[in-house]
Amino acid sequence: MSDWENNVRKAVPYIPGEQPKSTGVIKLNTNENPYPPSPAATAALEAFNTDEMRLYPAPDASQLVDAIAETYGVKSSQVFVGVGSDDVIAMAFMTFFNSDRPVLFPDITYSFYDVWADIYRIPYEQIPLTEDFRIRPEDYIRPNGGIIFPNPNAPTGVLESVETIKKIVESNPSSVVIIDEAYIDFGGTSVLPLTEKYDNLLVVQTFSKSRSMAGMRIGYAIGSEKLIKYMNDVKFSVNSYTMNRVTIACGAAAVRDRTCLEQTCAKIITTREAAKKELAQRGFTFPDSMSNFIFARPRNIPAKTVFEKLRLRNIFVRHWDKPVIGDYLRITIGTDEEMQALYRALDEILQEG
Amino acid sequence: MSDWENNVRKAVPYIPGEQPKSTGVIKLNTNENPYPPSPAATAALEAFNTDEMRLYPAPDASQLVDAIAETYGVKSSQVFVGVGSDDVIAMAFMTFFNSDRPVLFPDITYSFYDVWADIYRIPYEQIPLTEDFRIRPEDYIRPNGGIIFPNPNAPTGVLESVETIKKIVESNPSSVVIIDEAYIDFGGTSVLPLTEKYDNLLVVQTFSKSRSMAGMRIGYAIGSEKLIKYMNDVKFSVNSYTMNRVTIACGAAAVRDRTCLEQTCAKIITTREAAKKELAQRGFTFPDSMSNFIFARPRNIPAKTVFEKLRLRNIFVRHWDKPVIGDYLRITIGTDEEMQALYRALDEILQEG
Repeated sequence: MSDWENNVRKAVPYIPGEQPKSTGVIKLNTNENPYPPSPAATAALEAFNTDEMRLYPAPDASQLVDAIAETYGVKSSQVFVGVGSDDVIAMAFMTFFNSDRPVLFPDITYSFYDVWADIYRIPYEQIPLTEDFRIRPEDYIRPNGGIIFPNPNAPTGVLESVETIKKIVESNPSSVVIIDEAYIDFGGTSVLPLTEKYDNLLVVQTFSKSRSMAGMRIGYAIGSEKLIKYMNDVKFSVNSYTMNRVTIACGAAAVRDRTCLEQTCAKIITTREAAKKELAQRGFTFPDSMSNFIFARPRNIPAKTVFEKLRLRNIFVRHWDKPVIGDYLRITIGTDEEMQALYRALDEILQEG
Repeated sequence: MSDWENNVRKAVPYIPGEQPKSTGVIKLNTNENPYPPSPAATAALEAFNTDEMRLYPAPDASQLVDAIAETYGVKSSQVFVGVGSDDVIAMAFMTFFNSDRPVLFPDITYSFYDVWADIYRIPYEQIPLTEDFRIRPEDYIRPNGGIIFPNPNAPTGVLESVETIKKIVESNPSSVVIIDEAYIDFGGTSVLPLTEKYDNLLVVQTFSKSRSMAGMRIGYAIGSEKLIKYMNDVKFSVNSYTMNRVTIACGAAAVRDRTCLEQTCAKIITTREAAKKELAQRGFTFPDSMSNFIFARPRNIPAKTVFEKLRLRNIFVRHWDKPVIGDYLRITIGTDEEMQALYRALDEILQEG
């Protein structure tokens, strides 16, 4: 080992879901949207003036920030944008989770939270979910250095009520509470209106799921002007120009297209509800999902076996080799055709046993 | 003040150069390239398959990484890419600058270094440059937790020799030495070949200056496989998907276009050399610049006055209201036409006194 290696920050990185480079794959493993983004995004890309590539983007990405603010009926000073919601949440961890008390999040949840806490050296405590994967608000009423969870939760798909979140936020005036609403558009009710009342509530959303723009990397947070100001101060201390010109233009155009958003989500919800029946018929059990995926446990066959056999058939779903969640597969809702192919493959695999 | 605010990481952010939204401005304030990027970048944008927006990018951005590796004759495992060189350097600060000993950088240098050190709570020491803005290698031979400086330096434009850097790297086997070569293509000699010999040398470059792609946000680092592995582990602990699909495609296409790079830089160098004569004739003094800007001190009139009067004429240059560098203006080299407009404006301003 070289001498300089002693001072390196060693990290165990998050391992993202596989992005197969081959075509002909049915990709139900990273919760992407099977439908195209708003035609307005495509039009903005085509209209992009390539001469502008040589100029720095506006550091405040105001075109995109204003469009998001307008869409959600808040002030621009209440909107923070970043390179996907991962960037937004990582920045929020750095900005808000700075006490010696542990940050609280569920034991089964988005697997980046503990990675961020580790890399930023933030103490944390993982609170067990109930047996049916619910959050008990009482568990989050104790001294803490911050609270975060997705709603609906990942990878379970379980939605908590606005009342549950309100109770947690209200009981924690000394902490920032972050609700990661990556999947909220698939049938949940957003807690965005609560940000008007509680200046310690930060709501994070993304263009990657319901808006079909994972490839463009756009996430955002909405909260009180105070919260957003603190986040921007930290952001401008790390990188002033994170959102590039093409992204700003496409994002601003796409976010205003409510019709596309609603139609796309309606299609996915319909397919999801059908998938619940299909999977139940095949012996799978799962918590009721309000997201664009189902966290499903096969009967009489290890999840890992199903995962591997699907993969051999070029159908990618997500599986974690970990206790508890290792019994499940996270299956993204694709098109109806993709789901039919999945059911056929499952029939074969379950018959093989 | 709300209770939760006690735990906020407070930051004094970097203030980037102004990005005027009005047109008709001569923008010589943020070291952008006045010439368009490679036609290959434009072609890649036009060829981009918008259906792919819905899919996450490859987390390793391998298309871009491979293209950079090929262009510079290194292995792909020796290349790290990020959202502009700011992202790359911020990640390097987090990864490599982790001892209790201070990180060393010049007192006059890129003004983001102390901001990063502050935000990541890294101790640092700013080493005075000589009176003619040079780096003395002896100053960097003492216990330290890392070393960083740009070459050519910013905002001075002064180039240090490969020998100077070699001496510093060789004398510091216990530290990572980062050379920020944002401006190297404008006549300097890169220390890239030294990375073959020294596994503690990280060289950072960018698409924002010589490659005219500031608006796309692409930076990269080249170093030993060990260095790059450590950086990637940290990067994948913060955000797996930083480079979006459009950026990857445009960047990979553009980096292979050596001809465009060389022609553009040749034009800027010619204009810069002419600018040295023009500015000297008008009484400005400046260290000899090997970058795409000149750090020039006006005679008999405060730099701030010149800055403000240029601004009234819609000519933006950079000025910092700080000791020492406050006597200077940093003037980006624009097109010949833009520079002529600058000289005319300076003639008027200097006449007014």
